[in-house]
Amino acid sequence: MGGQIVSKMLIKNADVITLNEDGQVLMGTDIAIADDEILALGDVPAVFVPDEVIEATDCVVMPGFFNAHTHSAITLIRGWADDLPFDRWLNERIWVAESALEEEDVYWGAALAAAEMIRSGTVGFADHYFYMDQVAKAVEEAGLKATLAWCVFGLGEEAEIGADLEGSIEFLQRWQGAAEGRIRTVLGPHAPYSCPPEFLAKVAQRAAELGVGLHIHLSESEEQVKSSQAKHGLTPVAHLESLGFFDVPTIAAHCIYLTEEDKEILRQRRVNVVQCPGCHMKLGMGVTPVPELLARGINVALGTDGPASNNDLDMLQEARLASLMQKNYLRDPVALPGDSVLRLATQNGAKAMGFPESGVIAPGRAADLIIFDFDKPHLRPRHDLVSNIVYAAKPSDVSHVMVAGRLLMRDGELLTLDEERIMYEAEKRAWRMVGEELHTVRKYQV
Amino acid sequence: MGGQIVSKMLIKNADVITLNEDGQVLMGTDIAIADDEILALGDVPAVFVPDEVIEATDCVVMPGFFNAHTHSAITLIRGWADDLPFDRWLNERIWVAESALEEEDVYWGAALAAAEMIRSGTVGFADHYFYMDQVAKAVEEAGLKATLAWCVFGLGEEAEIGADLEGSIEFLQRWQGAAEGRIRTVLGPHAPYSCPPEFLAKVAQRAAELGVGLHIHLSESEEQVKSSQAKHGLTPVAHLESLGFFDVPTIAAHCIYLTEEDKEILRQRRVNVVQCPGCHMKLGMGVTPVPELLARGINVALGTDGPASNNDLDMLQEARLASLMQKNYLRDPVALPGDSVLRLATQNGAKAMGFPESGVIAPGRAADLIIFDFDKPHLRPRHDLVSNIVYAAKPSDVSHVMVAGRLLMRDGELLTLDEERIMYEAEKRAWRMVGEELHTVRKYQV
Repeated sequence: MGGQIVSKMLIKNADVITLNEDGQVLMGTDIAIADDEILALGDVPAVFVPDEVIEATDCVVMPGFFNAHTHSAITLIRGWADDLPFDRWLNERIWVAESALEEEDVYWGAALAAAEMIRSGTVGFADHYFYMDQVAKAVEEAGLKATLAWCVFGLGEEAEIGADLEGSIEFLQRWQGAAEGRIRTVLGPHAPYSCPPEFLAKVAQRAAELGVGLHIHLSESEEQVKSSQAKHGLTPVAHLESLGFFDVPTIAAHCIYLTEEDKEILRQRRVNVVQCPGCHMKLGMGVTPVPELLARGINVALGTDGPASNNDLDMLQEARLASLMQKNYLRDPVALPGDSVLRLATQNGAKAMGFPESGVIAPGRAADLIIFDFDKPHLRPRHDLVSNIVYAAKPSDVSHVMVAGRLLMRDGELLTLDEERIMYEAEKRAWRMVGEELHTVRKYQV
Repeated sequence: MGGQIVSKMLIKNADVITLNEDGQVLMGTDIAIADDEILALGDVPAVFVPDEVIEATDCVVMPGFFNAHTHSAITLIRGWADDLPFDRWLNERIWVAESALEEEDVYWGAALAAAEMIRSGTVGFADHYFYMDQVAKAVEEAGLKATLAWCVFGLGEEAEIGADLEGSIEFLQRWQGAAEGRIRTVLGPHAPYSCPPEFLAKVAQRAAELGVGLHIHLSESEEQVKSSQAKHGLTPVAHLESLGFFDVPTIAAHCIYLTEEDKEILRQRRVNVVQCPGCHMKLGMGVTPVPELLARGINVALGTDGPASNNDLDMLQEARLASLMQKNYLRDPVALPGDSVLRLATQNGAKAMGFPESGVIAPGRAADLIIFDFDKPHLRPRHDLVSNIVYAAKPSDVSHVMVAGRLLMRDGELLTLDEERIMYEAEKRAWRMVGEELHTVRKYQV
């Protein structure tokens, strides 16, 4: 961040997946970190005297993951709504639990998510939910980066929880640039199908005036597309375009059902598309045409969506699923190779979320990086480090997580969060929300 | 095993996913184990004095996984052949590496696989490869259960490595029932497309005479089906049926492209079908119609296939993928629910492999079980233990693995294998096989 350097770290002798333009993988290399930046890669100046040295022989360093679409506090209803048809999922489970949501629950749900995200190598996430001051507080304490939006519908009902448009703008202004710039805020209208057109236009106009971005759900189902065409004569993408929505940088989650014209709008207006592979598969939603969008030059990132439809926050899993689902859908084992999905899960997410300084291991870039311990049977032999990470590694192989030059996890130990207390508080609140304790019987169904 | 009881273990206060017919989940329950069997569940006799007590409060016990189709020694070429079209995958990579395979390599590859399998909760596996005495040796030492087949083609060339039909029968007889019954052997003709019909008929006849089963690859691609119809006037399934192949219990791996008649043959002849979801997705092979096969009453199990096409041996991942891929393929979030895929990954595999005493936590059943440590952020809250395991748990959450009443892993520590030495030897041999050391550069492709 400029000024006098106050923290110096040295990662020694690591194998480094840089994710630079050439896709370089460097073996046995040192990385010097000064404050929140990477100072040197491989050529550490002799005068650099670190405060801490991380011995990384046989370990692999790469940029940390950016989860570009989630609702982190939904950790509280993880596993409460599985294997159900959509209407029962929503009406019998999700609404029931969310209607019991209290403001402080969001803090504990987000803190539980933060612990899980750090443990699985995520350094930043885009969150779109309610009571977002609570999420911001958890982010500030955890040491993560985040792009936060208070979800608004424009139906007048949200005012009571501070989430009418003006309330969400107040939140945005309270937290923009907070936590030494680790927190960014955007506006978050829910979706084209759930918000009135004039409200969507107004949100976009206010975002442009404020110079901030937007985060919205878009084209999740064929029904949404048909309904939009019937109502507005336009697909959801074209409908938003007609309202001037894409005048500011936008994160558009899902984008499964797209016409040729939609894809052209997304390209021209530089919309950031976020696929959520685990969620899309688990809810039987379909396949975002990721290789085609990438080929057009569209920035595609990955997200987990909320843990009620995933059920975890594991970006390694999302990268692997993104590749596997395209390969099988297109019947093409070459589709979305390992190198590509690692970029979706890191630098493309960082770009979508407004942290373009992250996502590459190179001098001058943000020190947002993770270290994998490769001393595990499932990560040997090391024929190809990228393949081993995408197609075999697990979250538990992440040993260290660094965000803005600060270690959030060292040798598997969380340094910023009281994990035991968070698990206890979150579970207690989760059980209260659903009005009972743990299920004891589940029936077998085929 | 009868006779005097020599080992007594008590698992105290566990939450137990029994996978019994009623799908019971029991909370805070004790499990008594005597020798290789579960003696009591919940009602431990007062006179039972254990040699070892495992404190399992807040832990979850369930039957261990059975990986019903793999080639374990292919761990040696994990990550050596990814994101390539099939012809390049086979000709430039797999054949190159396998042509350099030496007999002792198979031991170290299988030992590396055994370490990974134990760490991820697998208690038994079906292996189909070459130099199978080496695999049997690794199984005996690791303490796992296994159903082993020496792969034969009937083309005369395998005699030099001891793998003509008679050689594979000698292997079968050397190891049938070895390691206190933990090792079972079957015959393993490669596939209908790669073996002459008269050879397939002869193998089946010898299997029937010997009273042993068969393990074969079946209907992996549309091309195989078309080619079989052109050559024999029959689908691969009908072709095997016409040769009397299914007169003995058969493990049929893949079964992706099936006609109505095929499905009826598989049902009538009680063929065990093994889907390999990770491999099928990664190689873009298609979707085995698992829900339909289950609805017909066919025993369907799960396998990882070899780590050149997966790239790991993680049965939790296969269970999750089995569910996710069906839900998205059928656009049905209710398809293959969590309970169902846990059964595929455990008891159905055990049945296919000839270990019907395994796969359920109940008195009198085999003590082949695993313990999950649920003291992790991604496994809280506990609304539904089955959901948390299928949709959120990771291999590293498995803390204890017991096979035939013997602990193979305690608190994350492998008790039967020298993991450090195995990783070193396996990697050294893996690098020799491909004629070089680790790649240092991979180019970015979209």
